Amino acid sequence: MFTLGIDYGTNSVRALVVRCADGAELGSAIVNYPSGHQGILLDPKDHHLARQHPGDYLFGLEKSVKAALAQAKKTKGFDAKKVVGLGVDTTGSSPIPVDRRNRALALDPKFKNNLHAQCWLWKDHTSHREAAQITALAAQHRPQFIAKCGNTYSSEWWWSKLWHCLTVAPKVFDAAYSWVELCDWIPSVLAGVTDPVQVKRGICAAGHKALYSDEWGGLPDKEFLALLDPKLAALRDRLYTKAYDASESAGTLGAEWAKKLGLPAGIPIAIGEFDVHYGAIGCGVTEGTLVKVIGTSTCDCGVVSADKTVADIPGICGIVKGAILPGYYGIEAGQSAVGDIFKWYVEGVLADVKLHAVLTAEAGKLKPGQSGLLALDWNNGNRTILVDQLLTGLLVGQTLYTTKAEIYRALIEATAFGARAIIERIREYGVPIDRVVCAGGIAEKNAVLMQIYADVTGCTMLVAGSSQACALGSAVSAAVLAGAHPDFATAQKKMTRLKKVAYKPKAASRKVYDRLYAQYRVLHDSFGGLDKSADLSRVMKELLAIKEAARA
Amino acid sequence: MFTLGIDYGTNSVRALVVRCADGAELGSAIVNYPSGHQGILLDPKDHHLARQHPGDYLFGLEKSVKAALAQAKKTKGFDAKKVVGLGVDTTGSSPIPVDRRNRALALDPKFKNNLHAQCWLWKDHTSHREAAQITALAAQHRPQFIAKCGNTYSSEWWWSKLWHCLTVAPKVFDAAYSWVELCDWIPSVLAGVTDPVQVKRGICAAGHKALYSDEWGGLPDKEFLALLDPKLAALRDRLYTKAYDASESAGTLGAEWAKKLGLPAGIPIAIGEFDVHYGAIGCGVTEGTLVKVIGTSTCDCGVVSADKTVADIPGICGIVKGAILPGYYGIEAGQSAVGDIFKWYVEGVLADVKLHAVLTAEAGKLKPGQSGLLALDWNNGNRTILVDQLLTGLLVGQTLYTTKAEIYRALIEATAFGARAIIERIREYGVPIDRVVCAGGIAEKNAVLMQIYADVTGCTMLVAGSSQACALGSAVSAAVLAGAHPDFATAQKKMTRLKKVAYKPKAASRKVYDRLYAQYRVLHDSFGGLDKSADLSRVMKELLAIKEAARA
Repeated sequence: MFTLGIDYGTNSVRALVVRCADGAELGSAIVNYPSGHQGILLDPKDHHLARQHPGDYLFGLEKSVKAALAQAKKTKGFDAKKVVGLGVDTTGSSPIPVDRRNRALALDPKFKNNLHAQCWLWKDHTSHREAAQITALAAQHRPQFIAKCGNTYSSEWWWSKLWHCLTVAPKVFDAAYSWVELCDWIPSVLAGVTDPVQVKRGICAAGHKALYSDEWGGLPDKEFLALLDPKLAALRDRLYTKAYDASESAGTLGAEWAKKLGLPAGIPIAIGEFDVHYGAIGCGVTEGTLVKVIGTSTCDCGVVSADKTVADIPGICGIVKGAILPGYYGIEAGQSAVGDIFKWYVEGVLADVKLHAVLTAEAGKLKPGQSGLLALDWNNGNRTILVDQLLTGLLVGQTLYTTKAEIYRALIEATAFGARAIIERIREYGVPIDRVVCAGGIAEKNAVLMQIYADVTGCTMLVAGSSQACALGSAVSAAVLAGAHPDFATAQKKMTRLKKVAYKPKAASRKVYDRLYAQYRVLHDSFGGLDKSADLSRVMKELLAIKEAARA
Repeated sequence: MFTLGIDYGTNSVRALVVRCADGAELGSAIVNYPSGHQGILLDPKDHHLARQHPGDYLFGLEKSVKAALAQAKKTKGFDAKKVVGLGVDTTGSSPIPVDRRNRALALDPKFKNNLHAQCWLWKDHTSHREAAQITALAAQHRPQFIAKCGNTYSSEWWWSKLWHCLTVAPKVFDAAYSWVELCDWIPSVLAGVTDPVQVKRGICAAGHKALYSDEWGGLPDKEFLALLDPKLAALRDRLYTKAYDASESAGTLGAEWAKKLGLPAGIPIAIGEFDVHYGAIGCGVTEGTLVKVIGTSTCDCGVVSADKTVADIPGICGIVKGAILPGYYGIEAGQSAVGDIFKWYVEGVLADVKLHAVLTAEAGKLKPGQSGLLALDWNNGNRTILVDQLLTGLLVGQTLYTTKAEIYRALIEATAFGARAIIERIREYGVPIDRVVCAGGIAEKNAVLMQIYADVTGCTMLVAGSSQACALGSAVSAAVLAGAHPDFATAQKKMTRLKKVAYKPKAASRKVYDRLYAQYRVLHDSFGGLDKSADLSRVMKELLAIKEAARA
C-alpha cells in the first residue's frame, strides 16, 4: 500500500509517493509556481503584499503528482492502483476567495489580474491595521478568542486578511461567495466539491487562524464579527460551522482529478493541515518533542495530550486541540523569517547567490562572540514571542573592520536567539521540551547553523530522516485514514525516522552565547516593547568585551 | 612671493605651492606613504591599533615638495628662490617617540619593525583603558584639565598613547628620550633641531591633546602625572614648557633640508598645527563659521575672539586659545568616522570599489525616509558629543526588501545626523554658527551627501574653493609669518575663496529629517548612555510610519 503526500510551500509544490509499510519514498517531484516573482505576486509599492495565483496550485498539483508517480513506477511492486489515500498540507493562513461553485475567483478571467482576488499568501502583511483592531476588539469583547494565540491576532491570519480585502477591494469581497483556506481548498478540489459551504475544513487552520473553537460554537459569533464589519458577520453563514481533526477525511478523490492524476477514484483524502503541522507528524512528533521546520520562515510545533491542561502561553501563535495529531493539543510558534533573512542578505544586499556557500564556510570558522556583532531577526517582523509584524531588523556592533562573513554569522545567530526565546517561553509555561527535531533544507544542509542553534539553545539538534517531512506527514495521515496503520503513533513509528547526525551543544560556546543572548534580550525587550525604560548603555561595551574575550 | 603648505593626511602627504598675492595654487603633489596597508601599520589581532612609519613622512616630504616645486616652475614668474616660507599641518594626536637627537626611534634599525616605536597615528585606539583612567583621575584631582575637552580624555590623545606604550612596550618607552607630535616633529626636522626639548611645540596639539594650558603652567604637573605613572612624571622634564600659536615661528629652514628640497635656507617655518586647524584657515574661518573637513573622519572647527568668554561645551574635543588663529579660541569637534564608514561598507562588505559611484547615484534617487532605515555613525566610536571610543555601529529598519543603496544612504544620513548633533551642541552653548564651509574630497565630489547634510542640519553647505584647504591654510600661515600679509584676516581674504556651489536645505526634506533625527537621538542617547531608561518601543514603528509617508 502506498499513499501520496502533497506539500504546498511558499515557492513550489512537491508530491511524494510513500510506502505505508516502512515510509520508503518511492517518488517525488517539485514544481515551481509559474507566476510572479518566484511564485509570489508582489506589489513594488508595498512590501507587505504577497499573493499567489490559485491556478499555479492546480498546475503544480497535476504536474508534481504525475511526475512523482512516474518516478515511483521505477520501483518494483509499485502501481498507482495501490495508492490508498492522499494527504495535502499547505502554507497558511492563505485564504482564497471563491465563487458559489467553489471556484477560486482568480480563475475567472474578470479577476485574473486582480491582486486582491488571488490567494492571500501567509506572509502577506497588508492587513496589519486590521489585525491590531481585531486584537483590540477581542481584548475588549471576547478575550477568550485570543487567549490561546498570545493575546494578539496577527496580520498573517484569516480575519485580518478578509477584512482588509473588504476595505481595499470591496468589489472582490462582494464577488466572493465564500473564502477557503488553501489547505482545505486543494482537498476540496481533489474531491470535486462544488459548494464552498460543503468544503470540509481542518481544525488546524480554523483553530489557529480563524478563531474557531468548539468552546464557543465554532467561528466567532456574528455579533463580534459585526463589530469588525457587518459584511463579515453576513459572510459567516457562507463559511463553515464545524472543523475537523485528522481522524476525519476531507472527502474522497473525485472522478475528474482521479483521471487527471492517474489515481484510483474514491480513495480517501486526509483532512488538510498546514505544512509544519503535518511536517511535525513526518518528524515523529510526540509529547516532549519540539519540531522545528526551518525554511524561509520557521515553524515550531509540539503536542500535549488533550487529557492535560495547557496554560495560555503569551506570544505563542496558537494552542489548538487536534491541530496536529487527533487527541492532542497542537502548539504552534514560529519565526517570521529565517532562511529569508540569509537570502535577503546574500542575494539582495550582496547580490551574489554563490556567496551562501562561501559565507557559511567562513562563518563556520568564526568563534562565538568573535565578531562583536549582534542582530535582531525581525526583518519580517516577529511572530513569537512578540507577535508584532511592525518590527524590523537590527544589526549592532559594526566596526570599520566588520566582514561580510561576520554579518552572515550574526544573522544566523540572531535566528538562533529567536529560536531560544521561543523554547524558553514554552518551557516557562510548563510544556517540556526534551528533544528538538529539525526539518527543512537548512536543517539538512547547514551544519554551521545547526551547531550554532545547539550552542545557543543548549538543546541537541536532531534532524528529520526525510527531506520532505511535510509531504511525508501528509502521507502518514493518509495512511492512517486509509487503514494502513491502526493509529498515528504506529504509523509514525513505521513511516518516519531521524538522520544519524546530532548536533550537541558545546559547553564553551554555550557560555559565550549565554552572554550574547542576555544582550539579545536587552535589544529584544526594549525594541519589542517589553521593557519601556531600558538601559542600552552597556550593550555595545558588552559586545566589545565578549569580542575581546573571544579573540584572546 | 610664494609659500609652501605641506599637509600630512592619514594615507598620504601633499605639498602645495601657493602665490601669496592671490592664493593661486601653482604646484601640488601627493605621495602615498609606502609602508603598511595604505600607509598604516596594522595589527590583524587588534583593530584598535594604527601606527605609521616616520620614515614614510620624510620620504613623502622630499618627494612631494620637489614634485610640487617642479610643477610650479611651469608658471611664469615662479622661482623656488621666491619661496618665502613654509607651513606644515598633520594628523593628530600622532605622537612619535624620539631619541636624544630628535631622531624618531623607528629610524633606528633596532626599532624599525617595532610597532610601538612608530608614530602612534591619531586613529589608534589601543589606549582606551588608559584614556578612561586619565578621565577618572582628572575628574577626581584636576577637573580643570578636562573641562574644556568635554570632561573626557580620549584614547586618541597624547597621554593615553604614551601611557599605553609604557604599559605594553616599556623598552620602547625607556628608549625614547622624548616624544614629539608629528605636527611639531616635521617642522623641527626641517629646521634641523637635534634636541627634542628645543623643538618648538604648537599650542594646537599641546592644548587639544596634551592637556597643556598657560592657566596651569603648561603641561600637567608632575604630581598629577605621577598618579598615572612616575615614569610619565619623569618624562615631563624632557618634553616642553611652552607651546606657541601661529604668530610664532617653529624655526627656519635648515641647510640640510633646504638643499634636499631646493629651497632657500633660513626661510621661516610656520608653527605646526593639525590639518583641520590649518584647514579651517584655508577655508576662510571667521567667527560664526563652522568649517567641516570631511574625510575618512570629520573635523569641525570654529573660532571665537579671545576677548570673549567661551563656556565649557560638554562633549567637544577641545577649546584652546590660539589653536587655529592667534587671538582666537579654537573650538574643535569631530566625528570618528565618515568616509571610513562608506569605505568599509562598499569596499569591506560589498567588496566592490566601483559601487561607490553606483550607490551614490542610486542613493540620490531615494527620498528622505523612504528606506525605513536608520543608522548610528559609530563604527569607529563617537568623538563628539559622546567622546566614547567603545561605541560601535548600528543599523535598524531592515526588511527583506532593503537594498544596498538604501543602506548606503542610511550610512550617509547617519553621518549627517552626527554632524547635526555637533552643530546643535555648539549652538546650545552660545557659539553661533551662521555658515558652514566644507572641505575635503567628499565635500567637493559628493553632491548627494552634501544635499543630505544641508537637509539634515538645516544649514546651507558651502564648499571651500581649494581642494587642498589644509595645505593652503599652512601656506597662509607661512605667508603671514613671512610678512607677505600684515595679518591672518587679510591673508585669508586674499588667499582663500569658496566654490560657487551652495547646497541649500529643502523644506520638505528637513521635515522628514527632523522626524528621523528624533529617532536618531533616541538611539544615540540610549546606546550612548545619556538616557538610561529609554523607551525604544516606538523606534521601529516610527521608522515604518516615516517610510510609509515617504512612499505615499
